[in-house]
Amino acid sequence: MLRAPRKWITLVALLLCGGVAHAQVAAEQMIWRQVDPENLVFVELLDGRFVLELNPRFAPKTVEQFRRLVLSRFYDGLSFYRVIDGFVAQGGDGSDLGELSSVPELGPEFEISWDEEIPFTSAQESDLYADETGFIDAFPVARNFKDGKLWLAHCPGMVAMARGEEADTSRTDFYIVIGQAPRYLDRNMNVFARVIEGMEVVQNIRRGEANANGIISVDTDRSRIRTMRLGSELPEDESLKALVMDSDSKPFRKMLDDRRNRKQKFFHNKPPKVLDVCQVPNPGKVTQ
Amino acid sequence: MLRAPRKWITLVALLLCGGVAHAQVAAEQMIWRQVDPENLVFVELLDGRFVLELNPRFAPKTVEQFRRLVLSRFYDGLSFYRVIDGFVAQGGDGSDLGELSSVPELGPEFEISWDEEIPFTSAQESDLYADETGFIDAFPVARNFKDGKLWLAHCPGMVAMARGEEADTSRTDFYIVIGQAPRYLDRNMNVFARVIEGMEVVQNIRRGEANANGIISVDTDRSRIRTMRLGSELPEDESLKALVMDSDSKPFRKMLDDRRNRKQKFFHNKPPKVLDVCQVPNPGKVTQ
Repeated sequence: MLRAPRKWITLVALLLCGGVAHAQVAAEQMIWRQVDPENLVFVELLDGRFVLELNPRFAPKTVEQFRRLVLSRFYDGLSFYRVIDGFVAQGGDGSDLGELSSVPELGPEFEISWDEEIPFTSAQESDLYADETGFIDAFPVARNFKDGKLWLAHCPGMVAMARGEEADTSRTDFYIVIGQAPRYLDRNMNVFARVIEGMEVVQNIRRGEANANGIISVDTDRSRIRTMRLGSELPEDESLKALVMDSDSKPFRKMLDDRRNRKQKFFHNKPPKVLDVCQVPNPGKVTQ
Repeated sequence: MLRAPRKWITLVALLLCGGVAHAQVAAEQMIWRQVDPENLVFVELLDGRFVLELNPRFAPKTVEQFRRLVLSRFYDGLSFYRVIDGFVAQGGDGSDLGELSSVPELGPEFEISWDEEIPFTSAQESDLYADETGFIDAFPVARNFKDGKLWLAHCPGMVAMARGEEADTSRTDFYIVIGQAPRYLDRNMNVFARVIEGMEVVQNIRRGEANANGIISVDTDRSRIRTMRLGSELPEDESLKALVMDSDSKPFRKMLDDRRNRKQKFFHNKPPKVLDVCQVPNPGKVTQ
């Protein structure tokens, strides 16, 4: 029995139901900020590209070292050697596995101090892991009131340096969060970037076995980094422009409000008026 | 400069740091429960297999209809036609897009009533989306104290029926959560299963474009379901045994405790003693 009219209403409802759909609707009126090419990293794998935005506000020394490594072609040809589905994809030269490395270790850049001048947009007070969550420069962040600390939150798509037991042992190898936000790592890692485009390419990175803790021992079995380039080093005629949402704007705040207050008839049990900062789709746009 | 001893300590620290690693360590002493073959579904895609456990305790009519559809080979050859990275992979015949369907609609099975007899293991009180979260039969659940309702939580790997705006419009098409838990959908959908093996295969399902709300219009571009079979219909010599963790056991509770109280030296800022029910790795084991 064809019931097209009802079904087309259905489709609309499903579209509204989609998390990304909400962002799309809001995106039309969204205000966008152009990413400084110095903070843009294009990562070409064999089967696709993803794009990072670096965050010098939170991790200036890590960003500086990462930029230097990219410029020296350090990552070209290296692979993702520890990939745990639902957790992280870790890439680099495997120096964390006992390989030689002459690259200097980085000090901890786990958090910064709260400053009223920072353009913070609140997402949620009394979040499970922090007094408040929100966005700064479109990056998901969290903060504590008492100690006045502010940090980048371990949401899907966030990028941090791997390290050993000591706080100052970050060096070259990095991981991308690919599963439910491991927020217990917050304030413990040098988080320094986020994926602004191509998260589906990241999700395609070959996994290791869970009982080997994700380590893929055969090098040729791993997803490989063909090239990694800074936006600022692309030749003029290939140069790409990246835009991200301006999280310090009215349309962005409205998008957060709409997600916190779902008014659609689709919701027969109204969801609690809360927002998981890691469940806000917030991709960038990369264009010629 | 080779500093092997420190680096090997490093490796141990990184292993402990891994979410899955924790589950692995605990897994050795874990108590396992065999899944009833009636509740097992083997889904063969062209490039791999994933395995579902159905949950008749929470969604008996949905499970009954899904079993019937599997037995009638309804899903064989169908595809995942709406796939939004970071959100859901939706498969079926596209009846939600206005296609004909003679399969009856299902009533809402959004939640059940709290009952002291149900083997509930607490994960977290005052969760952002509910008064308490926990596990029942190894499925992530949430409950509210005042209204005494209990429901399956929209964590990664959970499976629910798609529907239209009306609560009773579920039919055949289903979605698998593939991104940060969209908990705002809790208590609004017929959640009826979870992926107990092969989540990396699910993550490999081809995505649609975000600005088309994930819809992949060209059928041949979609990831396809080769076959879907119930555990109970496999011939004796091919029959597979599936084990899942017994969430009503001491080792499981200890695993949750260990994740809530991270004592490793790796954590220079001790994480808050909280637990996101959707961030507990809890896969099953499928063996001959």
